[in-house]
Amino acid sequence: MKIGFIGFGKVARNLVRLINSENITFLTSAQNRSENTIKNMEESDVEILDTFKEVATLSDILISANSPNQALDVAVKYGKYSKGIYMDLNNISPKETLEINKHVNFVDGAIIGKIDSANPILYLSGKNLESLDFLNDFLEIRKISENPGDASKLKLLRSMYTKSLSAVLIESSEVAKNLNLEEEFFDILSLTEGEDFKKSALSRINNTKNSKKRKAEELEQIIDYFENQDLTMVKASFKKLNR
Amino acid sequence: MKIGFIGFGKVARNLVRLINSENITFLTSAQNRSENTIKNMEESDVEILDTFKEVATLSDILISANSPNQALDVAVKYGKYSKGIYMDLNNISPKETLEINKHVNFVDGAIIGKIDSANPILYLSGKNLESLDFLNDFLEIRKISENPGDASKLKLLRSMYTKSLSAVLIESSEVAKNLNLEEEFFDILSLTEGEDFKKSALSRINNTKNSKKRKAEELEQIIDYFENQDLTMVKASFKKLNR
Repeated sequence: MKIGFIGFGKVARNLVRLINSENITFLTSAQNRSENTIKNMEESDVEILDTFKEVATLSDILISANSPNQALDVAVKYGKYSKGIYMDLNNISPKETLEINKHVNFVDGAIIGKIDSANPILYLSGKNLESLDFLNDFLEIRKISENPGDASKLKLLRSMYTKSLSAVLIESSEVAKNLNLEEEFFDILSLTEGEDFKKSALSRINNTKNSKKRKAEELEQIIDYFENQDLTMVKASFKKLNR
Repeated sequence: MKIGFIGFGKVARNLVRLINSENITFLTSAQNRSENTIKNMEESDVEILDTFKEVATLSDILISANSPNQALDVAVKYGKYSKGIYMDLNNISPKETLEINKHVNFVDGAIIGKIDSANPILYLSGKNLESLDFLNDFLEIRKISENPGDASKLKLLRSMYTKSLSAVLIESSEVAKNLNLEEEFFDILSLTEGEDFKKSALSRINNTKNSKKRKAEELEQIIDYFENQDLTMVKASFKKLNR
């Protein structure tokens, strides 16, 4: 079996590392790639072809893992050569997954946990997921549904919760700080929320504050996509982070 | 040493159970008490006097644990007879603690965890806290500061966080449900938030939905008390629960 990559960054490199079988050949191309990416390819167990067209034509599974804003272009350009499954692992919106689905035999994937860890989990939605069952030998696969876009929606739902929680933590810890009760605030919550509450809360707070603009943009995408839902808390979180 | 109770409900009954020493005598009165409360007294190791005036006069520590809306009246009425420490364990607002503080030698307490468990924790703020160190032999005491009202503020801060979190959980799980991805939503979050995420999230959600009106009122008190702070998330939570 041949698995081809369009784009060869962290995700592709780690999938090659994890899916370690003599029955599987990995393909990619150095066409228009940066020096750094080519170095990554050369250090991985992957066959480097002249063009991505060849990669697409020869692959049973074609994986797009480059950057969200190129995901649709890549699907339009190379999807037509793909005879097997086309899997998108970019962090794209559910709307884009539906666009891409018009052009390819589509599976939509979301990686949870760190891809460079020993046990990342891959959520998948789309048709013919049973043909991907062999991946379970190498990493944990969770099949959501036959609807392309569900993996991407699930990722948004997750992000909706975690970012709203961060906004709540930022607000309540700041009020506590203003009252000179910050230590006590973390202390009292640790009693019921678990011993590592303070550590995990501070990590969320710092993480969010360090990329406030990007997190606010992601919240804006959630508000845009789930426009018919009651998003009182998400909208407040956006307002909070957008200050 | 004599510890007197004005009011003899769950809190008083459990403190008598926990503070178990032959050097300590507990006092209370049956004056204007309900049959049920008198039954509680008779089943506890407490001396029952004719009047609360006598209880206040004889106690080294006078504990007010009746109901939040009587807390100030009780302090005005009996505080003047107390020669020792006056501890309020009602769930009162920081503003009320400052009122009470005008009338008595005040210590403000907040019980965290269930009072009828083996290890409730008592947060205390106020003057002369060192005279209460002996309580550490019977339950866990955490001294916050010399400022009466800090224990009550800390309780509000805790409530601000937990109620906003519940509002976030209600919102994101409802959107997930509307997208037919509720199970997957809890599943994916359990990976990073801990194994018992689903259980604790559902318990918060149900708990909040079952007492929406009361929780919204408590949020209103927080908004009222912390009026000079940025309360974007708390206000959204109030809006969410007040629907």
